Amino acid sequence: MPDLLTDRSARVVAARKLTRRSGRDDAGAFLAEGRQAVSEALAQAEGEPGAVREVFATEAAAEAHHELLAATRVPVRLVDEKAAASLSETVTPQGLVAVCALRDVPAQRLVTDPPQLAVALAELNDPGNAGTVLRTADACGAGAVVFGAGSADPYNGKVVRSSAGSLFHVDVVRSAPLPALIAGVQAAGVRVLAADGGGEIALDAAAGDGLLAGPVLWLFGNEARGLDPALAAAADVRVRIPMRGRAESLNLSVAAAICLYATQLAQG
Amino acid sequence: MPDLLTDRSARVVAARKLTRRSGRDDAGAFLAEGRQAVSEALAQAEGEPGAVREVFATEAAAEAHHELLAATRVPVRLVDEKAAASLSETVTPQGLVAVCALRDVPAQRLVTDPPQLAVALAELNDPGNAGTVLRTADACGAGAVVFGAGSADPYNGKVVRSSAGSLFHVDVVRSAPLPALIAGVQAAGVRVLAADGGGEIALDAAAGDGLLAGPVLWLFGNEARGLDPALAAAADVRVRIPMRGRAESLNLSVAAAICLYATQLAQG
Repeated sequence: MPDLLTDRSARVVAARKLTRRSGRDDAGAFLAEGRQAVSEALAQAEGEPGAVREVFATEAAAEAHHELLAATRVPVRLVDEKAAASLSETVTPQGLVAVCALRDVPAQRLVTDPPQLAVALAELNDPGNAGTVLRTADACGAGAVVFGAGSADPYNGKVVRSSAGSLFHVDVVRSAPLPALIAGVQAAGVRVLAADGGGEIALDAAAGDGLLAGPVLWLFGNEARGLDPALAAAADVRVRIPMRGRAESLNLSVAAAICLYATQLAQG
Repeated sequence: MPDLLTDRSARVVAARKLTRRSGRDDAGAFLAEGRQAVSEALAQAEGEPGAVREVFATEAAAEAHHELLAATRVPVRLVDEKAAASLSETVTPQGLVAVCALRDVPAQRLVTDPPQLAVALAELNDPGNAGTVLRTADACGAGAVVFGAGSADPYNGKVVRSSAGSLFHVDVVRSAPLPALIAGVQAAGVRVLAADGGGEIALDAAAGDGLLAGPVLWLFGNEARGLDPALAAAADVRVRIPMRGRAESLNLSVAAAICLYATQLAQG
């Protein structure tokens, strides 16, 4: 019978601080919970030692994910159920949590080496929506997702969970001042597209006119208020999603998905 | 000073039962909360007396929404804050709740009069996702959304809220047995499309081949398990969303949005 760490063990107490943003900033680390996220994190750590500092697993989780954990050189610490629950932000903890090094990159990278498709979130503060947009951006081949000031923290547990592993696939920029970033990427030849219900061009027309050809940066705004007018004005073009039905608007992560998929198709 | 109903008033007690499915079924009514939903409900009631039975409003809400409430013949009952909170399923109650008659239509309507675009949800049990798909379907011009057995209840408070009024715009079918419905609409000339990550044709190819031309019925499955294999097999074609990035899959409401928007474009 191995010695299990409890919720009062120093390592668990230290890891629990990562459930708060200030704790993550102090430690330079965040928590990735559950099979999918831990598996992506460990894959990352293979090429990048230090990407994952340690993994906490209950005995049941260590048994269930034996192959995954046996294949890594990252230290695995066995914890009791209560300790695992104290590190979890879900109702039904999976008993498997990795402590990962923060992995955001400087905003300047979008200027010096612009990807064909990048996304910037402006005051998108619902973590579930932010993680969903990150996942969709990854699916559509985006190289970077910028979490602007006032947006959810990309390392928030709900963002990590709803990104379904995509946090480990794309470059993430954190707390970037968007007006400066927009000016910077525009100078580097990137077309900045604002998703805007009152935009001057419809998405299908924008695709037809070649406006989605890369490199582009899409701007998405707040769930309720939409995009800040000054940011929308700074974009090269404001794009609306045509709707033949009666809904007044779309959910933010749905609107982003439609724009990003159309861009993937246009960039074929 | 008017007499305010409290959380123990008979009308409020009766309305509170509508927060549960069994209560809604017994009374044949559901609750629509907040400015947007109540406004859509009252617009419905203009052409359809009986669509809204009564509206509960706090004094503050009655003042804030004075024009809306003055324009209707539906009875408005003033309630105290505690009574309003007891009818609310949100953290910050808006103090405005309408008691609406259930409005679902028989599944048979999709067979006798098939819309160009309809949607069926198979075991889609997250109410937020279900409401979001309903809203997106409305935006893309769908005529009907079927909530299959095992899916969220369309009158669940979270579904109503995340549908953002769209529950009042499209025909809703509740608890339909999907295998019989699929066979029925196919016999009526409707093409049934299954959204399926392992589908034999990519969405853009399906559009190019004319497979999205109406009338079509889209099937969307469970968030975690996807579509039941028997249902997928019953469809005319199984469609996957091409992804050039590294994400393994898409969020269900995101996948539905991409399929529905592509269909709207194809049906131009």
